[in-house]
Amino acid sequence: MNNFTFHNPTKIIFGEGSLSQLGQEAAKHSNKALIVYGGGSVKRTGLYDKVVAQLKEHHIETFELGGIEPNPRLATVRKGIEIIRSNGIGFILAVGGGSVIDASKAIAAGVPYEGDVWDFLTRQAKPTSAVPLGTVLTLSATGSEMNGGAVITNWEENRKLSFGSIYTFPKFSILDPTLTFTVPADQTAYGSVDMMTHVFEQYFSHTTDTPLQERLCESIMRTIVDNAPIAIAKPDDYAARANLMLCGTYALNGGMISVGVQGDWASHGIEHELSAIYDIPHGAGLSIVYPNWMKHVYRERIERFVQFAVRVWDVDPSGKTDDEIAMAGIQATREFFTRIGAPATLTEVGIGDDRLKEMADKAVHFGPLGSFKKLTSEDVEQIYRLSL
Amino acid sequence: MNNFTFHNPTKIIFGEGSLSQLGQEAAKHSNKALIVYGGGSVKRTGLYDKVVAQLKEHHIETFELGGIEPNPRLATVRKGIEIIRSNGIGFILAVGGGSVIDASKAIAAGVPYEGDVWDFLTRQAKPTSAVPLGTVLTLSATGSEMNGGAVITNWEENRKLSFGSIYTFPKFSILDPTLTFTVPADQTAYGSVDMMTHVFEQYFSHTTDTPLQERLCESIMRTIVDNAPIAIAKPDDYAARANLMLCGTYALNGGMISVGVQGDWASHGIEHELSAIYDIPHGAGLSIVYPNWMKHVYRERIERFVQFAVRVWDVDPSGKTDDEIAMAGIQATREFFTRIGAPATLTEVGIGDDRLKEMADKAVHFGPLGSFKKLTSEDVEQIYRLSL
Repeated sequence: MNNFTFHNPTKIIFGEGSLSQLGQEAAKHSNKALIVYGGGSVKRTGLYDKVVAQLKEHHIETFELGGIEPNPRLATVRKGIEIIRSNGIGFILAVGGGSVIDASKAIAAGVPYEGDVWDFLTRQAKPTSAVPLGTVLTLSATGSEMNGGAVITNWEENRKLSFGSIYTFPKFSILDPTLTFTVPADQTAYGSVDMMTHVFEQYFSHTTDTPLQERLCESIMRTIVDNAPIAIAKPDDYAARANLMLCGTYALNGGMISVGVQGDWASHGIEHELSAIYDIPHGAGLSIVYPNWMKHVYRERIERFVQFAVRVWDVDPSGKTDDEIAMAGIQATREFFTRIGAPATLTEVGIGDDRLKEMADKAVHFGPLGSFKKLTSEDVEQIYRLSL
Repeated sequence: MNNFTFHNPTKIIFGEGSLSQLGQEAAKHSNKALIVYGGGSVKRTGLYDKVVAQLKEHHIETFELGGIEPNPRLATVRKGIEIIRSNGIGFILAVGGGSVIDASKAIAAGVPYEGDVWDFLTRQAKPTSAVPLGTVLTLSATGSEMNGGAVITNWEENRKLSFGSIYTFPKFSILDPTLTFTVPADQTAYGSVDMMTHVFEQYFSHTTDTPLQERLCESIMRTIVDNAPIAIAKPDDYAARANLMLCGTYALNGGMISVGVQGDWASHGIEHELSAIYDIPHGAGLSIVYPNWMKHVYRERIERFVQFAVRVWDVDPSGKTDDEIAMAGIQATREFFTRIGAPATLTEVGIGDDRLKEMADKAVHFGPLGSFKKLTSEDVEQIYRLSL
């Protein structure tokens, strides 16, 4: 186990009806709030009106920024920063999924910063403060509701980058599983893939002596595998939605399940290049890429892949070589993604082989990608080719 | 899963050498610190001097309160409150195990309170603020380093009660596994029992649809079972000490592993009556009592005990009745406690049957004890008798 610092100050308010606590939590921060949301489904479902009513009841003046994109864009973030600065707003409320929350974090950190917010993404500057932020989660997926990280796309440059800070942890997040009842099957599947791969990124590691962290990861993976198909088949199954919501939040909440473990994160980098150019859903890209990353790297520490196969997928190891056991686990991963309706190939989502090298080169822009195996541009291109 | 609120703002700084971060963390809070410690081992090992040096280097004036008892006492807490008030101290640093940290929390909450601090324990008042508190942990056991709870003994009244508050979560805790290398075998065993039973209290529950929480609990239990014997056999095994330290912290950190789950906590109440009169180590009392509580209650939800036996103790269920599987798990628990050197009977620790009814009556002072089975005074007395 490596040395580590863990600090996650986000307050989680979980369960049906928890929206009733929104007003009192928001009122702790400011009497002017910017409500950030996505494509408008929160208005159609009536959630937006409930949110506004809660805030008004606590004498909070509301402003709004809608239209956050599924891969949230820098231009929209800049717009949010402007609204806050010109209206003296002291609190941001993200109502939506990971994209809305991520955009809100970038806005929050960008407001007090003198330079351009993109500097945080290109690692030329670090946030030193942020406007306080709360969230009302409507999609189980990214874990952004309980961490300080955000992924932003600069569409003009086709670059999708991430940043993280202790200042951008939400002050509170309201997690009501019933708010995810209306999430369609494909988005539920992509969200499940996303959280599953967040655990993968922390699980496939060379760090030794981390038995608790490994088991915590396995606990989340098994719970996703059991509950995602139920939520897809029966969208208003409260228990399945609640279990998935908790899995998504725990899968990436500042590293709780992987304290002292060196994560990999190559596959997320590989996927980000795909969605930066083709604007596909992040979870769909991960579903395509991840099992192929596994095939490319599993021999780097085959015993971890053997453990994965046995403990997560109940692969019977008797009479099999380590190679066969590991490959059975990878195959089970692919079959699970397919079973819940996530794509397996780039071809399926309309991506051909014409820009693979360009994306591979961009993926290693900051140096070799990942830590389980340090990937060169050639490695990344091979993984793209395996994914065609 | 029940609705819940989870909020754990404690910053954990973990690993060998992490003490070097003490000064800068403490300096965020005050330039006057009260160092609270126990029987003096921290002075013998040289840790105290290192702590003072760190604080001095950051221009913090230090005061001290030593002699915190293993079951920390109200009289000592009152003394700490006095020292802080009369010297205008703005920060408390607990250096020790759960007892030292618990006493420090009661001091922290007591300082700004106009009445007597015991009111918090008797539930006649709730803290509304507290002096900021940091910890340097020297014993893996109670989890007090990452939660807001404390147990205090009123020796004059032979009463041992608990309180908890968001205000008494440590601001930071420094967890260096090497600081536990000198913990003797018996204390390592009691600490392991304590953390194991913290998980039990959250695992044996009637709450349904909590698959992730159950697996998280099982993860910690299995890791304790694997690592406690190693730490006892080889006290300076870094990996085993680090794994145990993480297990202790995660086992009781504001409910992370059991969000939305109704806990039981009857056995802790039953044990507190023992140590309030006989002053035995808390972990020793739990080792005696817990498996007998299990025998008394397991039929209330036998499937949870079956799952416990199979998943935690690898009991082979084939050809066995549920009753046999459950009992095999309980038996395995007893054998594990015995294997690491924790006592199995009250007789072993010199406690006879003369005050069992008195203790049973006191245990249900606030009403029936626990939730897995609501225990009456008669139930509690039966569990004491099973433990003789």
